[in-house]
Amino acid sequence: MSREEAEKLASTLNYRHEDSTVIAVLQDINTKEVLMVGHMNREAVVKTLTTGYAHFWSLSRRKLWLKGETSGNFQIVEDVRIDCDSDAIVLKVKSVGPVCHTGNWSCFYRGYSDFIK
Amino acid sequence: MSREEAEKLASTLNYRHEDSTVIAVLQDINTKEVLMVGHMNREAVVKTLTTGYAHFWSLSRRKLWLKGETSGNFQIVEDVRIDCDSDAIVLKVKSVGPVCHTGNWSCFYRGYSDFIK
Repeated sequence: MSREEAEKLASTLNYRHEDSTVIAVLQDINTKEVLMVGHMNREAVVKTLTTGYAHFWSLSRRKLWLKGETSGNFQIVEDVRIDCDSDAIVLKVKSVGPVCHTGNWSCFYRGYSDFIK
Repeated sequence: MSREEAEKLASTLNYRHEDSTVIAVLQDINTKEVLMVGHMNREAVVKTLTTGYAHFWSLSRRKLWLKGETSGNFQIVEDVRIDCDSDAIVLKVKSVGPVCHTGNWSCFYRGYSDFIK
């Protein structure tokens, strides 16, 4: 997407969450599995749309990060969906490797049976 | 799920988002479509798990709400997944009607072509 188009889309979002962000849900475009949830500020949205690689705003480290910059497991964005009040987006992605730092394909690898024993 | 089990699971979550909440992603258990994103405080998590109906904490109205309490479009929770740092959950649901207040099945009914004209 061109910079102009990315800026246009980024301008329509409502960055009302922590540190002026929207919530971003990564979904595997093939399996439709939810892979992770993160936050994006305006800069992360523009970088994601112009490069095609998912970028996030880290709430804990308070910095922009390219998902995969250390692990190599980049998230290639194939489609973007925006919710009704423009404060959350779904990124449909192809992942080049596991999304989770634990090595699991998805961060949501635990079910309630893992907690109720 | 019993109250005891619900409290046990609720105790493992990290309510680090706005108003002491976790992020909750509703996903259609059949189509795997992402339906909406909301926030849950501890009370909303316990009510969701004990009743089987999705409850949220409204950041704008600052109150607990049962999804569907006015529209009748309740979200019946079939499965729960928890992410690696315990601050986000995925609820796999059967919806008895459209999730979005606009009448769309999903809140994520807009794509980037709706913004880039």
